[in-house]
Amino acid sequence: MRPLIVLNLKTYLEGTGEGAVRIAEACRDVGEASGIEIAVAPQLCDVYRVASQVDVPVYSQHIDGVGAGSFTGHVFARSVKDAGAVGTLINHSERRLNLADIEASITAAKGEGLRTIVCTNNIATTAAAAALKPDFVAVEPPELIGSGIPVSKADPEVVRGSVSAVERIDADVKVLCGAGISKGEDLKAAMELGSVGVLLASGIVKAEDPKAALEDLVSLI
Amino acid sequence: MRPLIVLNLKTYLEGTGEGAVRIAEACRDVGEASGIEIAVAPQLCDVYRVASQVDVPVYSQHIDGVGAGSFTGHVFARSVKDAGAVGTLINHSERRLNLADIEASITAAKGEGLRTIVCTNNIATTAAAAALKPDFVAVEPPELIGSGIPVSKADPEVVRGSVSAVERIDADVKVLCGAGISKGEDLKAAMELGSVGVLLASGIVKAEDPKAALEDLVSLI
Amino acid sequence: MRPLIVLNLKTYLEGTGEGAVRIAEACRDVGEASGIEIAVAPQLCDVYRVASQVDVPVYSQHIDGVGAGSFTGHVFARSVKDAGAVGTLINHSERRLNLADIEASITAAKGEGLRTIVCTNNIATTAAAAALKPDFVAVEPPELIGSGIPVSKADPEVVRGSVSAVERIDADVKVLCGAGISKGEDLKAAMELGSVGVLLASGIVKAEDPKAALEDLVSLI
Amino acid sequence: MRPLIVLNLKTYLEGTGEGAVRIAEACRDVGEASGIEIAVAPQLCDVYRVASQVDVPVYSQHIDGVGAGSFTGHVFARSVKDAGAVGTLINHSERRLNLADIEASITAAKGEGLRTIVCTNNIATTAAAAALKPDFVAVEPPELIGSGIPVSKADPEVVRGSVSAVERIDADVKVLCGAGISKGEDLKAAMELGSVGVLLASGIVKAEDPKAALEDLVSLI
Repeated sequence: MRPLIVLNLKTYLEGTGEGAVRIAEACRDVGEASGIEIAVAPQLCDVYRVASQVDVPVYSQHIDGVGAGSFTGHVFARSVKDAGAVGTLINHSERRLNLADIEASITAAKGEGLRTIVCTNNIATTAAAAALKPDFVAVEPPELIGSGIPVSKADPEVVRGSVSAVERIDADVKVLCGAGISKGEDLKAAMELGSVGVLLASGIVKAEDPKAALEDLVSLI
Repeated sequence: MRPLIVLNLKTYLEGTGEGAVRIAEACRDVGEASGIEIAVAPQLCDVYRVASQVDVPVYSQHIDGVGAGSFTGHVFARSVKDAGAVGTLINHSERRLNLADIEASITAAKGEGLRTIVCTNNIATTAAAAALKPDFVAVEPPELIGSGIPVSKADPEVVRGSVSAVERIDADVKVLCGAGISKGEDLKAAMELGSVGVLLASGIVKAEDPKAALEDLVSLI
Repeated sequence: MRPLIVLNLKTYLEGTGEGAVRIAEACRDVGEASGIEIAVAPQLCDVYRVASQVDVPVYSQHIDGVGAGSFTGHVFARSVKDAGAVGTLINHSERRLNLADIEASITAAKGEGLRTIVCTNNIATTAAAAALKPDFVAVEPPELIGSGIPVSKADPEVVRGSVSAVERIDADVKVLCGAGISKGEDLKAAMELGSVGVLLASGIVKAEDPKAALEDLVSLI
Repeated sequence: MRPLIVLNLKTYLEGTGEGAVRIAEACRDVGEASGIEIAVAPQLCDVYRVASQVDVPVYSQHIDGVGAGSFTGHVFARSVKDAGAVGTLINHSERRLNLADIEASITAAKGEGLRTIVCTNNIATTAAAAALKPDFVAVEPPELIGSGIPVSKADPEVVRGSVSAVERIDADVKVLCGAGISKGEDLKAAMELGSVGVLLASGIVKAEDPKAALEDLVSLI
């Protein structure tokens, strides 16, 4: 099976505005060359710019579970979809939501045909998120995020345990893993542990040459 | 003095995606014809689309007080600026921030040359917000937001009291008022109470003809 | 099976301070007379007063998933336990937590031997909460809370659906239901739908005679 | 002028349950011997226990700006007052509130005759908080909290600047300072910078002998 790679640009300066477009182009180029889906998750203000300028799958970094109405400053699924996104992260460890809002966000995203990736911090919350039937759960131990130490090496059990917990809850939900992932061997290890792909960020965005870093990432698949 | 009018599109369906562009065009046309500054505050995902397609001042509905870095799903001032905004709402009653974050958001916005409008709910919080030295404080009694009953009629004292409280704290800060504003007489009354403009939303966005509604709004100035 | 009844005193004036003690005494008296466990959930500042003065099971209305340390204003499980509580509500619809914090709160409560009741708003979130292995999940449709319309009559399907969803996830977790419950027939209906008890509040606390209201509540079991 | 000393017990194990009572007794003893007011701020579940067992001024670590009603898990001013507190911290850096809620909390506390200490993180937010007319603003640079490095030494300008900013806004509001304070020289320096007292925590609570640490604290006044 072909993995899904989602590159989260966070609020990195290198991935803001024109920088987001350039990194999205690298995702597109390496994705096309390798035949592996490499999506990009730019900041909210960059979703339209990236999606209208680059032929790459775009994910939002966040949506709220709100509908049309009086929700100033909130992220409405329709708006994300209209801007050209195909999916969204939900409940990233840097933008946590309460349980009712995670469920409402998944429902709102599905209503617009957006793919949903719910982020979680351990096996128990991964199981809970799977019960909400998103397309993917992405487990990321918070202490490894941005550490440069890949979760697949530092804590393989959290990935394996997440995969089997999700299977018991709902076999249609797939598992991604994240935190510290940046190299080809990390992605390979993540797949061998049963995940279907990875969520990554600083290891690529802050690399001297993001395109070369992406090429290395997919080199062992 | 020429008033400042800021039209908040919230997550109204009529003001999402292409709808945001159309309403922004109405703001531009009525603004040009009347010589009055009419700004538009679209959703985050629409800031770039509106700013790149319509020659109108664009405000963000929200920013966070974060810098470049690991802040997934947050609204980074640089990103708002790069997308073409000239200012931002902060602490709208539908997207409240804690005190330290309001201050950090103002600082972040000023660092990018964005104009800052801090929203408040009564005279005391207006005074507090003024001490943080934003460009504007916009006082909006929450119970009147979306009510169709203009604050200038229902509670003129909150506007007058806000104006004099802000003058005592920092005479460089200007006062807008909002909640229930939609007609020419509301704007006129708001100016007579000492505010320099208005923040409005549903009365225009949900009008059968937003452009005509804007023309009525500025007709008595 | 004997039901569990938990009476949430919220911040009702009738259930504050000495009022909390008097209502706890009514819970104790009706509990002893009927042989049914009637617990009381007073405000945080009243946990010690009620637990030290009345022989009744006391639940906290909230705990945080924090340990010992620099967490000013947070509710530490050890403190709740030391004050005499035997359990705690978690994630009430009026005090929602993010997913990671719900899991951390359950873990913290279990570490002190406190029983855990996670509140949820629909079938999907009930299933998710069950995956976190609390002792109970209490499903309460928010629109019925305080309505006087019992969930067992207005929306029996949410109770039945919650019971079967939880059974599929983890048969050790039990389901309570709440919202609009106050009479004997409501409790009877709740049990017949598969729940093991109820969470209630205003219908008893604001009754002219709370003790008589509790006697009516248990009269059909 | 006699300083005000407020000892925040946070969720330290040493200051939980019986530990809170013991530390409160040390505050009382040193306060009586020195003639200096030493108040204690225990956890919410310990307010009643401490206030009913020890003759010492008790502050809550937090209150919410809610009234009587459907506010499960919130901290109602009446409940804090009934439990025996004489005041409350508001907006501690570990329990921040949005601006509208800070104002509502001050109003709620004053309605019950509770003294109010609003915590802030820098000169600008101190000025803003002063505009809300609490009894005290306590400025604590977050990076120094728990550091053991006294704010009066590491950043005297934030104290001096806070004192003069508050004077300009409302001369009736007094300034406390905190972060890293634990010794007699720290308190002396804090007073010389224009503050009327200090907020402290770990330096005393985690001292081998808290009573001796308090005696040292007041030894130079």
